[in-house]
Amino acid sequence: MNPIEHVLEFMTEIEKLKDVQRKTRPVGLNRYENSAEHSWHVCLSALMLKDYANEPINIDRVIKMLLIHDLGEIDAGDTIIYAGETKEIKEKEEAGIKRVFSLLPVGKADEYISLWSEFELGESVDAKYAKAIDRVPPLLHNLKGEGHSWKDNNVPKEKVFYLNSRIAKGSTALWNVLKGKLNKAVVDGILK
Amino acid sequence: MNPIEHVLEFMTEIEKLKDVQRKTRPVGLNRYENSAEHSWHVCLSALMLKDYANEPINIDRVIKMLLIHDLGEIDAGDTIIYAGETKEIKEKEEAGIKRVFSLLPVGKADEYISLWSEFELGESVDAKYAKAIDRVPPLLHNLKGEGHSWKDNNVPKEKVFYLNSRIAKGSTALWNVLKGKLNKAVVDGILK
Repeated sequence: MNPIEHVLEFMTEIEKLKDVQRKTRPVGLNRYENSAEHSWHVCLSALMLKDYANEPINIDRVIKMLLIHDLGEIDAGDTIIYAGETKEIKEKEEAGIKRVFSLLPVGKADEYISLWSEFELGESVDAKYAKAIDRVPPLLHNLKGEGHSWKDNNVPKEKVFYLNSRIAKGSTALWNVLKGKLNKAVVDGILK
Repeated sequence: MNPIEHVLEFMTEIEKLKDVQRKTRPVGLNRYENSAEHSWHVCLSALMLKDYANEPINIDRVIKMLLIHDLGEIDAGDTIIYAGETKEIKEKEEAGIKRVFSLLPVGKADEYISLWSEFELGESVDAKYAKAIDRVPPLLHNLKGEGHSWKDNNVPKEKVFYLNSRIAKGSTALWNVLKGKLNKAVVDGILK
């Protein structure tokens, strides 16, 4: 089989990410977000926020990480961060990533599986920044959408502050701005 | 205002691309595709097909082009390529791009407006490849979805071959594989 045929099969398989439903609604929309459009949104957001990373990042690597970061959800589904990251879910996502990348031409998968693992580990400079950006859109959705997902999932403000404070690992400046908005949401009664 | 606030406004504005409906349905889904998830799909497809470009490309520039290539549709809406690219639509898209990027911190817009113009012009090596990749998913949607969009929009096979043959400008190898699939679709009666 022509290697291009393999890539076309991969392109068809990843269409399924457009059918993975997340837990927040995009600003102004009544439906829930899917993981494919979310992936685009975080890639472009990472590009526009790159100057505010704590340490010099390689934005091209960050964008590649974010393009693939949710592909494991095709098999594992989306999990809200407030539910905690169980070992079982992570194993399912890893198996999913390996299955999806196995569709690529021979020798192409390893580079991307490694990039995905680096993101998951969240320890490199690029991964810390990518993970920080990944947390921002759900905050905007809630802040601009009356805290709908916090309410629907009974997430108390302590948990919102605690789990999102990890944004500071990638960008202290960004977290400071968001913390201000979350404090205002508490005053306004949107976040309880 | 803190420049990060400007970027957060930009991130909120581009959410609207998730509500721009395209003319094909993703493989396996009953709903139409939106331009945000499409943008993700072409970025990742471009990455995986990069070795098949006619000339050496800068994949990082290509991905950035494709991340932003449809932002003008927030104001102009999506147009099927078979409808022809009128001057009026292109002007509306350009005005839209400029409006959306004007939300960014001072001095940040020009670089991206220039990248968008390069894509639209389609003459640089990177733009020719990016434009080629942009045409592939609608073909896959039709090929795997009984030619639904060709039928719905009364697109004859001559037009499908003629307009998509431009894929060869970015990747002859890719066009050759797709041409084979289109020929089979004609034999199968999916493309008339």
